[in-house]
Amino acid sequence: MIRVGIIGLGTVGTGTYRILTENHSLIKSKTGLNIKVEKIADIDKNKAKEIGLKEGLFTTDAYEIVNDKKIDIVVELIGGTTIAYDLITESIKNKKGIITANKYLLALKGKEIFDLAQKHGSPIGFEASVCGGIPVIRAIKEGLVANRITSIMGILNGTSNYIMTKMTEEAKPFSEALKDAQRLGFAEQDPSFDVEGIDAAHKLCILIGLAFGCHINLDDIAIKGITRIEPVDIELAREFGYKIKLLALARQEGNELEARVEPAMIPIKHPMSSVNDVFNAVYILGDRVGPNMFYGRGAGSEPTGSAVVSDIVDIAKQIVSQGKKTPTPGLRFNNKIKMKDSDTAYVPFYLRFTAQDRPGVLSKISGILARYMISISTVIQKGRKENGYVPIVMLTHEAVEGDIKKAMEEIDRLPFIRGESIQIRIEEGLG
Amino acid sequence: MIRVGIIGLGTVGTGTYRILTENHSLIKSKTGLNIKVEKIADIDKNKAKEIGLKEGLFTTDAYEIVNDKKIDIVVELIGGTTIAYDLITESIKNKKGIITANKYLLALKGKEIFDLAQKHGSPIGFEASVCGGIPVIRAIKEGLVANRITSIMGILNGTSNYIMTKMTEEAKPFSEALKDAQRLGFAEQDPSFDVEGIDAAHKLCILIGLAFGCHINLDDIAIKGITRIEPVDIELAREFGYKIKLLALARQEGNELEARVEPAMIPIKHPMSSVNDVFNAVYILGDRVGPNMFYGRGAGSEPTGSAVVSDIVDIAKQIVSQGKKTPTPGLRFNNKIKMKDSDTAYVPFYLRFTAQDRPGVLSKISGILARYMISISTVIQKGRKENGYVPIVMLTHEAVEGDIKKAMEEIDRLPFIRGESIQIRIEEGLG
Repeated sequence: MIRVGIIGLGTVGTGTYRILTENHSLIKSKTGLNIKVEKIADIDKNKAKEIGLKEGLFTTDAYEIVNDKKIDIVVELIGGTTIAYDLITESIKNKKGIITANKYLLALKGKEIFDLAQKHGSPIGFEASVCGGIPVIRAIKEGLVANRITSIMGILNGTSNYIMTKMTEEAKPFSEALKDAQRLGFAEQDPSFDVEGIDAAHKLCILIGLAFGCHINLDDIAIKGITRIEPVDIELAREFGYKIKLLALARQEGNELEARVEPAMIPIKHPMSSVNDVFNAVYILGDRVGPNMFYGRGAGSEPTGSAVVSDIVDIAKQIVSQGKKTPTPGLRFNNKIKMKDSDTAYVPFYLRFTAQDRPGVLSKISGILARYMISISTVIQKGRKENGYVPIVMLTHEAVEGDIKKAMEEIDRLPFIRGESIQIRIEEGLG
Repeated sequence: MIRVGIIGLGTVGTGTYRILTENHSLIKSKTGLNIKVEKIADIDKNKAKEIGLKEGLFTTDAYEIVNDKKIDIVVELIGGTTIAYDLITESIKNKKGIITANKYLLALKGKEIFDLAQKHGSPIGFEASVCGGIPVIRAIKEGLVANRITSIMGILNGTSNYIMTKMTEEAKPFSEALKDAQRLGFAEQDPSFDVEGIDAAHKLCILIGLAFGCHINLDDIAIKGITRIEPVDIELAREFGYKIKLLALARQEGNELEARVEPAMIPIKHPMSSVNDVFNAVYILGDRVGPNMFYGRGAGSEPTGSAVVSDIVDIAKQIVSQGKKTPTPGLRFNNKIKMKDSDTAYVPFYLRFTAQDRPGVLSKISGILARYMISISTVIQKGRKENGYVPIVMLTHEAVEGDIKKAMEEIDRLPFIRGESIQIRIEEGLG
C-alpha cells in the first residue's frame, strides 16, 4: 500500500481527493497499486466537513504529514512561495516523494528544490504545475526524450484565452470579456497575474527548464499582457487570416534562447488557433519528431487532480519496484544558454495608430517607419471615426523589434496621434 | 551501458539508428543513460552500407540478436505477423525488453504477446505502433491513468488524411488525390490497407486495449473506407459547417463498446478538424480530465524513430534501476465488454442520392425515409446535372443506423436512382 498525504484542500486538493477515492479501484485495476489517502491538512477546519472526510483523516498541522513516517508521498497544493517551500524541502529531507502544482514556486526556486531532491534521491512530480490535465511535462520528459527541442509555443493561461475567445467570438471589449470571466469564476477579482502574462511566464520557466535544460529567471522573459487588445485588432487579424492569442514562446537559435509571453497573431489554419475558451495547448518542435501539440483543460479541480494522481502513480511505481531510487530527471539546469535580447527579434508586425483623419498623416507615419528600415506590406484605415480620429493599421514585412519600438515611440509623439499605439507580432514560423 | 539490437533496417529502423547515434550524447545528458546499438539485423546486406554501418555491427540473422546474451533490448521493426511474432516471443523468453512498432501484429496477437511478457516479466514498448511520433500510448497509460476513458476518436492514418485534405483544399477527386499521395510516397502502390480503414482499425484495436482494458477482434470493428467520398460531399460538408475525416471511434456506454472506422463529418470548429495533411491526432475523453488531444506526425522515419527511442529510454531506466521487474502494464484484457451492434448507433446522417431530375422523386425518397422514422432536417439539390441526373443531399435528425441502411437499400432500388447512394455519419458529440 502506498500512503499519500495531501496538504491544501482547495480546488486541486479536493479534486485529487475525489479522484483517489472514487477511482480507487479503477486505478488499482490498471496499475496494481493500492493508493491510500493517509492524511489531509488544511488551515480551514470546515473543509474536511465539506467533502465528507472521515474523522482522524484531517489535520490543521501540515507538519503532521511532512513528519509522518508512514506517509510515502507528500502532495503540496497550498500554493505560495514561503510555507510551501519549507514544506517541500522538509519532505525531501524526510525522503518522501513530492508532488506539487505550484508553478510560481517552481519558477522562482525550482533550481534549489531540484538540487536538494537530487541530493536526497527524492522524486518530484510537477505535471499539475503546467497546463493542468494535459500530460505535457511527461510528454517532454519521456515521450520526446529522443529530441533536441528547438521551440515551444504555449497557450498556457486559461483565463486570458477565455477572454480572448469571447473578444473574438462576440466582439466584446476586453473589460466586458473580463467581467464575464469573473462572473463565471474563470478570473480572479484581481486578474493581473493572468491577463498580464505573469502566470503564463511562470509556466514557461518550467517548460524551458524541462525542454532546454537551462535555468532562467522570470526577468529573462519579455512579458506583455492582453489588456490593450481591442476588438478592432481581432477583427482585422481575422481579415488578414490570423487569430490573436496570448502566446508563450521559447525558441533556441544556436546558443541563444528567446523567451517571451505576449499577444501574437497566428495563422487561422494553424492548429493552435483552434484552442479556444479556457483550454490550453502546447506546441513543441523536436528535431526528430517535428511538431507535436498537446491540448486540454489547463485548470479546474479534477483536470488538475488528474495530473496530480498521474504523478502519484508514477512515484508509487518507483517505490513499489524497490529499485535504486532514480529521481525522475526533472528540471535540468546543466545547459548554459545565453538569453537573446528580445529587441533583436525579426518578425512581421501588425501596427495600429489612432490618428487625426487629415491629409499628410500617412506620409508622416510611413516616413518615420522608413527611417528605421521598416517596410510596410499593407495599410488600411478601418473602423468608425471618433472625434475626428480614425484607426490606421499597417502590416510590416519582417522588422527588428527594437526598431519597431523606437519608431512607435517617435510616431506616438506626433501631434496628430492619440494615445499609445499598438504593436502585435505575427508568428508565421510555427513549424 | 544498455545494449540494443535492432531487427529491420527499413524506414523506422534507419530513423531509430540515426537518432540513437546522432542524439546519443543529448539523450545521455537528459537521462544519464549510455545507450549503445550493439547489433542490427536485416535480410538485405546493402542496407548496412547505405547507412554507413560499421563492420561487425550488422548481421542477416535476426536470431543473432534474439539470442545475444549481451543485448538488453530487442527492437522489432520488420513488420508482418509470422517471423516478427516468433522473434518477439523468443526475445521475451530470453528475458529481454521488447520494443515493436508492429500494429498489425499487436492487433492480431496482442493478447498472446502481453500474456507471455507478463509471465516472463519482460517490459514491452509499443509507442511507435500508433500515431508514430505522438506519445499517445504513454499519455493514455500514464498521463491519464487516473481517468476512466469514455471515448476515443482518432485520425490514425496519415495516407487517408492526406488524401482527404487534398480533396478538401484542392477539390480533387479521390483518384487524383490518391495519385498525388503515391507520387509523394505517402501511399503504397496498393493503398487498400490505408484508404479502406484497415490500418486505422489495427491502431484502434491497440488503443482500445489500452484505454478500455479489453480485447477485441478486428471483426468487432465496423470499417468503411474513404474511396466513395466525392468532392461534392466535402464541399457540402463545409457549407453545413463540417469537415469529413476518416475517423476511428471507440465509445463505451454502460457495458457496451462501440468501435468503428469510417468517414465522418465533424464540426469545423472542433480541434480535430484542423488536423490536416499527413498529420495524426487522438482526441480522448476522460471522466476527470475532460478532453485531451494529441497531435503530430503519425509516420515517417525519424518521427516514428523518436517513439521507438522513447521506449528504449523507458525500458533502459527500468533495467538500470535494478528494481523488481514491473512489466509496464500495457494492453489490458481484464474487462469483459460487450460489443455494441454498430447498426444501433443513433446519430444524424448526411445522405446523397443521384436521381433523375423530374417531379415526384423527392416525394418518393422522403416517403421511404418517413416509413423508417427518419426525419429530415435539410434538403438541397446542388451540383451540375449529368445526363439528366442530379445529386440530392439530405441531412437527417438523429436516426438509427440500421434503419438508415435499410431505407438506403430500398431507395437505391428505385428506377430513377443511379448507382449506390452515400451515407456519412455526423459526429457532433465529440465532447
